[in-house]
Amino acid sequence: MTGPTTGPTTAVATYAIPPTFLGSRRSDRSAPICIAGIPLDLGTTNRSGARFGPGAIRRASRMLVDGAHPQHWVDPTTLPLADIGDFALALGDLAASMALIEQQAGGIEHLVALGGDHSITLPLLRALAKRHSAPALIHFDAHIDTWPDNFGQAYGHGSVFYHAIEEGLLDPRRMVQIGIRSPVPREVYDWTLARGVTPITAQKFHEIGPAAVAQRIAEIVGDGPVYLSIDIDVLDPAFAPGTGTPEIGGLASWQVQAVLRRLPGLRFVGMDVVEVAPAYDTAEITALAGATMAWEYICLLGLGR
Amino acid sequence: MTGPTTGPTTAVATYAIPPTFLGSRRSDRSAPICIAGIPLDLGTTNRSGARFGPGAIRRASRMLVDGAHPQHWVDPTTLPLADIGDFALALGDLAASMALIEQQAGGIEHLVALGGDHSITLPLLRALAKRHSAPALIHFDAHIDTWPDNFGQAYGHGSVFYHAIEEGLLDPRRMVQIGIRSPVPREVYDWTLARGVTPITAQKFHEIGPAAVAQRIAEIVGDGPVYLSIDIDVLDPAFAPGTGTPEIGGLASWQVQAVLRRLPGLRFVGMDVVEVAPAYDTAEITALAGATMAWEYICLLGLGR
Amino acid sequence: MTGPTTGPTTAVATYAIPPTFLGSRRSDRSAPICIAGIPLDLGTTNRSGARFGPGAIRRASRMLVDGAHPQHWVDPTTLPLADIGDFALALGDLAASMALIEQQAGGIEHLVALGGDHSITLPLLRALAKRHSAPALIHFDAHIDTWPDNFGQAYGHGSVFYHAIEEGLLDPRRMVQIGIRSPVPREVYDWTLARGVTPITAQKFHEIGPAAVAQRIAEIVGDGPVYLSIDIDVLDPAFAPGTGTPEIGGLASWQVQAVLRRLPGLRFVGMDVVEVAPAYDTAEITALAGATMAWEYICLLGLGR
Amino acid sequence: MTGPTTGPTTAVATYAIPPTFLGSRRSDRSAPICIAGIPLDLGTTNRSGARFGPGAIRRASRMLVDGAHPQHWVDPTTLPLADIGDFALALGDLAASMALIEQQAGGIEHLVALGGDHSITLPLLRALAKRHSAPALIHFDAHIDTWPDNFGQAYGHGSVFYHAIEEGLLDPRRMVQIGIRSPVPREVYDWTLARGVTPITAQKFHEIGPAAVAQRIAEIVGDGPVYLSIDIDVLDPAFAPGTGTPEIGGLASWQVQAVLRRLPGLRFVGMDVVEVAPAYDTAEITALAGATMAWEYICLLGLGR
Amino acid sequence: MTGPTTGPTTAVATYAIPPTFLGSRRSDRSAPICIAGIPLDLGTTNRSGARFGPGAIRRASRMLVDGAHPQHWVDPTTLPLADIGDFALALGDLAASMALIEQQAGGIEHLVALGGDHSITLPLLRALAKRHSAPALIHFDAHIDTWPDNFGQAYGHGSVFYHAIEEGLLDPRRMVQIGIRSPVPREVYDWTLARGVTPITAQKFHEIGPAAVAQRIAEIVGDGPVYLSIDIDVLDPAFAPGTGTPEIGGLASWQVQAVLRRLPGLRFVGMDVVEVAPAYDTAEITALAGATMAWEYICLLGLGR
Amino acid sequence: MTGPTTGPTTAVATYAIPPTFLGSRRSDRSAPICIAGIPLDLGTTNRSGARFGPGAIRRASRMLVDGAHPQHWVDPTTLPLADIGDFALALGDLAASMALIEQQAGGIEHLVALGGDHSITLPLLRALAKRHSAPALIHFDAHIDTWPDNFGQAYGHGSVFYHAIEEGLLDPRRMVQIGIRSPVPREVYDWTLARGVTPITAQKFHEIGPAAVAQRIAEIVGDGPVYLSIDIDVLDPAFAPGTGTPEIGGLASWQVQAVLRRLPGLRFVGMDVVEVAPAYDTAEITALAGATMAWEYICLLGLGR
Repeated sequence: MTGPTTGPTTAVATYAIPPTFLGSRRSDRSAPICIAGIPLDLGTTNRSGARFGPGAIRRASRMLVDGAHPQHWVDPTTLPLADIGDFALALGDLAASMALIEQQAGGIEHLVALGGDHSITLPLLRALAKRHSAPALIHFDAHIDTWPDNFGQAYGHGSVFYHAIEEGLLDPRRMVQIGIRSPVPREVYDWTLARGVTPITAQKFHEIGPAAVAQRIAEIVGDGPVYLSIDIDVLDPAFAPGTGTPEIGGLASWQVQAVLRRLPGLRFVGMDVVEVAPAYDTAEITALAGATMAWEYICLLGLGR
Repeated sequence: MTGPTTGPTTAVATYAIPPTFLGSRRSDRSAPICIAGIPLDLGTTNRSGARFGPGAIRRASRMLVDGAHPQHWVDPTTLPLADIGDFALALGDLAASMALIEQQAGGIEHLVALGGDHSITLPLLRALAKRHSAPALIHFDAHIDTWPDNFGQAYGHGSVFYHAIEEGLLDPRRMVQIGIRSPVPREVYDWTLARGVTPITAQKFHEIGPAAVAQRIAEIVGDGPVYLSIDIDVLDPAFAPGTGTPEIGGLASWQVQAVLRRLPGLRFVGMDVVEVAPAYDTAEITALAGATMAWEYICLLGLGR
Repeated sequence: MTGPTTGPTTAVATYAIPPTFLGSRRSDRSAPICIAGIPLDLGTTNRSGARFGPGAIRRASRMLVDGAHPQHWVDPTTLPLADIGDFALALGDLAASMALIEQQAGGIEHLVALGGDHSITLPLLRALAKRHSAPALIHFDAHIDTWPDNFGQAYGHGSVFYHAIEEGLLDPRRMVQIGIRSPVPREVYDWTLARGVTPITAQKFHEIGPAAVAQRIAEIVGDGPVYLSIDIDVLDPAFAPGTGTPEIGGLASWQVQAVLRRLPGLRFVGMDVVEVAPAYDTAEITALAGATMAWEYICLLGLGR
Repeated sequence: MTGPTTGPTTAVATYAIPPTFLGSRRSDRSAPICIAGIPLDLGTTNRSGARFGPGAIRRASRMLVDGAHPQHWVDPTTLPLADIGDFALALGDLAASMALIEQQAGGIEHLVALGGDHSITLPLLRALAKRHSAPALIHFDAHIDTWPDNFGQAYGHGSVFYHAIEEGLLDPRRMVQIGIRSPVPREVYDWTLARGVTPITAQKFHEIGPAAVAQRIAEIVGDGPVYLSIDIDVLDPAFAPGTGTPEIGGLASWQVQAVLRRLPGLRFVGMDVVEVAPAYDTAEITALAGATMAWEYICLLGLGR
Repeated sequence: MTGPTTGPTTAVATYAIPPTFLGSRRSDRSAPICIAGIPLDLGTTNRSGARFGPGAIRRASRMLVDGAHPQHWVDPTTLPLADIGDFALALGDLAASMALIEQQAGGIEHLVALGGDHSITLPLLRALAKRHSAPALIHFDAHIDTWPDNFGQAYGHGSVFYHAIEEGLLDPRRMVQIGIRSPVPREVYDWTLARGVTPITAQKFHEIGPAAVAQRIAEIVGDGPVYLSIDIDVLDPAFAPGTGTPEIGGLASWQVQAVLRRLPGLRFVGMDVVEVAPAYDTAEITALAGATMAWEYICLLGLGR
Repeated sequence: MTGPTTGPTTAVATYAIPPTFLGSRRSDRSAPICIAGIPLDLGTTNRSGARFGPGAIRRASRMLVDGAHPQHWVDPTTLPLADIGDFALALGDLAASMALIEQQAGGIEHLVALGGDHSITLPLLRALAKRHSAPALIHFDAHIDTWPDNFGQAYGHGSVFYHAIEEGLLDPRRMVQIGIRSPVPREVYDWTLARGVTPITAQKFHEIGPAAVAQRIAEIVGDGPVYLSIDIDVLDPAFAPGTGTPEIGGLASWQVQAVLRRLPGLRFVGMDVVEVAPAYDTAEITALAGATMAWEYICLLGLGR
């Protein structure tokens, strides 16, 4: 275990904290909240490299250790949190890797997953389906991810929610997509609308602001179980250059935080933050954004405890 | 021609698409819309490197191929578009290069030019003057570019519109400059105002928002022919680090898009996007911004067809 | 002295201007306004490298030389400004370095300091206390910097204002902190509030906008002497990646400028801009942000002359 | 097709040459020498990103266009060379991608493949086996690539030659591995020796020099058909940082060139250069190394014509 | 503890191995060989940032896990090795940090220290002096590090061996410095020679080669206890850009390896590798060089067991 | 003038030294040795950016201040050296810029020029011709630079020595080119040989080593006046990534130093180091290489005084 060998915790410099999530020294899968890395990038359609996302997010998370959330006043290092390490995957085989992810996610009470590309969310939802039938989804992303295929392949990071909806893993009428802005075939967009999904485009978000967005989300997802999936490319590339399929015109990080902080009452059942690709990052700002999003989520969980 | 050797187009991965603009396989100058690269950086007063702009913008444009514009629902790959390659230039000789640009732009029906530094716009306007007398100008930039000289030289990227106005290539009363914010000698600013040009500073833009800006533009440019020139440094360096003369306090990319998307009724006669300098870019986000701006423009053209 | 050896000043290219602040050729400590670099990074709790801040800020400042402020119409190169070079420091010894800073700041009429990490502000305030009793403070930062210690050490960049308040160097009831957003122990936050300090968090700023923030600042600081301290990490990492302790959710550079430009009537007695760490910068945008903040301040001074 | 729209070829600036290999304007698969990109990185065990290798190598190759080889005096732009674009692949499915590669390589007279990770070589050898029984192999690499598996998977870039030998695609007694230096399980190394393969470690190479290495290669491969596979990580990371599994202690680029230039008499039947991962490159030097290696090979082919 | 949560060790991808040195899961100080990080950069005279060296070296070391040393055939993961984490330090206080280092190094049987700047070596030698009187020193460096002060301060990374010799911590007649090449005051150089130290300059090394160097080292250090200190700037900046005080004309990494591999018979009592500054690294090659040097050393220890 | 405001020179940290060459505080053109920057990149055929070379070389030179040359024992800060700043140039006009360079170089006793691209050498030789008839030339470069034109233009960085020979500015029989390796048209190469020029290719250099090269140089240049021109791309891109037209297979920096250090008896009359392009550099190693080459030259001058 890395970390200072002597001295009180308060004497540990940021960069000397063990590079687990928030410096967690707990690693058992029986913890009420488990953090896991899923270093998969086989489903990426453009830039690969999200396999290094979990490590980068963990390291960046150490910037968040010293103190409490400045609005909720939750200190997540006081929560029963374990960083259980990275999931094992099958090299070069997306389908097999997805099966491994589903299997390893089984039995975890509440999982916060650090991707990896967005294709990890499908097996996570499959695993979740064994506990919660058709949860709502709050989905932050530049892309709607309901393409029926990826360059001719059934699975990939662009068709996660196509399959999730088709497989009944989600309730599409309680699904809201925030920050959408990429080019998309009209028929893919229309198919998504027809399923009952509510998109809030990035332009719309910029117009109405985070308070209105948060209210709309609350209306859509209601009181049932909710899953949160944050594709870091929901942020503008200025805020998150380190990702695989950037699209300009995106959200600022404060906007996403302003929405999340208005969602303390929801019944969250799991979360992932995906598509941090460190090789394209600058000064680790994308990794820090990913880490902070997971931290915001965990502070929400802390509020409810 | 690079590109996959087998399989349907839909099976082509983003990074395997031929690096022409939007993967265009058409290259004849007789196309109704021609894209050309103008890899000039001889007119640059600070960081050079815009000569690599066209190639970087083309490569980045491949991210935009898969689908339609998410608001106008135009798919630009269905438009009669040709990427005619790069203009030939004279090494080390700005004046001769400008003459070559004017000559090569001649006879093209509708040109979308990928710079290169802003000094390309002067010969493009000279060529345009043979077809359209004194068009209006929508000019996005951090700089007003009406300096009468550049470190003592008549031509350069800071005096483009000084010469364009002096030569009568534009109607300055139908000229609007958006995002202006650099230091500037008062006499240069006053000269510009005295010609009838309307500046909308970056601070003003932030105050009034894109809808008001778009309305003001429409009022100023009216029904006549309009040329659009986007200096990528109109964006804040956060959104466009890869440029030669950055100025902080600039626009977000969504703001520029929000303006452009409100201009479908205008009678556009040509466009350029300039000053992408890839050596200073991070994760190709500036190149992507440049490509997306040209794509927004082409979608506007598509709406009118 | 670097700089062109022949030709009029107007013929000097940006990159050939001597790399002093705004290309200043004056260097005497008797100038009414002195710029000094303080290349200290011994007080940094995370990424080091702010020792290269002064040089990077100076080089970037050359982009701002050609013309006047586009709103105040002050040309700072016409002000009685001297770049007096870098302060000497004690390698590896923060306490001794602070003493050296205090000593070297003595006797300067009006100092604009280029950091270096934020721990330089404490000795600067100590030196200032000999001229002005308990000035007001306008403090832009992601962090409140009132931790009572830094990993167990009394001094460091996170406890600057704890000591300043404890030593009576500032009037905490006339102290406003803008852009605050990092995690922080509740007791540190409460201690700060109890001293009478007014925080305006980044989220609050985004909600109410720069005009309201500027008005609140004016109310708080009043008519007495005011010191301005800008930690560049007040900006979002998108705008200022080159810093030591970035926090997402921060301000855009235009927002900080929009506040500063509304403060011309205040009675400023000194200023610093700190925490520019060039090794983490991209395309020198953080250095440019730092330089522009100092330039905005100097233009305010120019308005009052 | 990108490239200047007017003027003689000699007036084309390096960066305006169409980004095909050596600016080739020929793209038919019937050419005597075909260049193809194989943008695969599904078989990578560490850093991904070799999918961008073909594009980067092509762009870098333009530096090599203006003139003849300075030792062989072959000008490869005069050879019957076509750049046939990129092979189609199956997203997220290494096995299916390998089948596609084998299929697309079929029927090409002489293929120069630009990877992509090293796992492309296995299907290329399978395709070659239909024309040439068990060719010799000259293999430049930091790794012996005869691991029987990759993290438990049969295929991947570390087991290429294990399978090639097991499938009888090569004559292991006429196989020489140059630059070997990574940690390796003893049993993997011994298995390789037992097959008859000759390793020349990097340390050995540094001791005996390129002339002795070239002579040893000539002795081993003899007069039969020879395949050349260059993993760019044979170069030291100083010379090729842009790769997935770097190992220090490697070769300088001049050393590899010094060997290749001594092999004009061999009967080459195909070549690949693999593992260029541009996201990790600096100043495109790894891409240039990859391009130059393919250019050296093509000049050898030109000598024999 | 990070790392895959299921599956056999052999199925763990490189980037999913826990980021301890060589993925070690042992962390007790009673291990026969202890690895510790010492994230100090307070003694740096130029670029800071070596505080991030230990983390970067640990991550890079994972590339070396899969197999045995290709010459000694030692697999260091089979040795009784613990990564005991990072030493605690005093922020901003070099003298206090050195005292903490000395204290924490006490009682460790055999320490391999990952710096951190070179000033860590002095307290490590002080701690060692309690076990071994005046060991020999093999010192790889671009600088002789016997300056009597550092910009006027007694301690710093340039005066480590001045103090070590003055304090009698080393036997200077059994001290050899390899790779020396920086400018140096003649009196500093002469003082060092007069103490009996043997320098082998970089130019000399290039002339005579690693075998002769290794033989000279063996002659000088003899049979007594030997400490090995590798400043990564002994490598040319091409091989180790990520360091604080680079000097051109340095060694290639293979040369240092070629020396180390010829030293299996020596009686090593401790080792450090210092001055890896990741913020200046490219593609993590300097971190990999640092990790590989420590791995070479540990393999030497393994040979002797 | 930047630099510490108090304390003895020896207390000045490297990064606080004024960024003139070697921290020189003398700037008059009457100095026996003048350093000038020539920030020209209009003659560049590939990557631009050498305009930032002088500034980067000056900053890097500060690493070389503290001490004497470790072989010649000359301390160049004790020589009568002035850094006279940058030459003025004409934006966008290579021919006019060359005339300005020739004019500004006139009257300087001994000039050490920091480029800028290689096209600066032609006007420098023209200026030199007024003092010394047809000096010998020692030319380090990857390219022979005797192309009769550059993409159709007479002047540019590829035809410097074509014109210099044609204009009789050099004695081609006393001209030696070291490190040559780029592709080149045979007729250009043959023309050069026919003029009497002696090339030593990079491959030849690697074969025979620096001592033999130095001896060959001495034989060729003889006792007359000698000009030294170092294009930094003579170094392999590993050692000098920050340049415009890199070619692999180049020299290591130690090799160039090993040659230069063997030339103390020559009658040098001027020197330039060109083609450092900082935007492509990593960790400033190319700038440091450029600075060190100029420092080696100045130390040679110091030996002769």
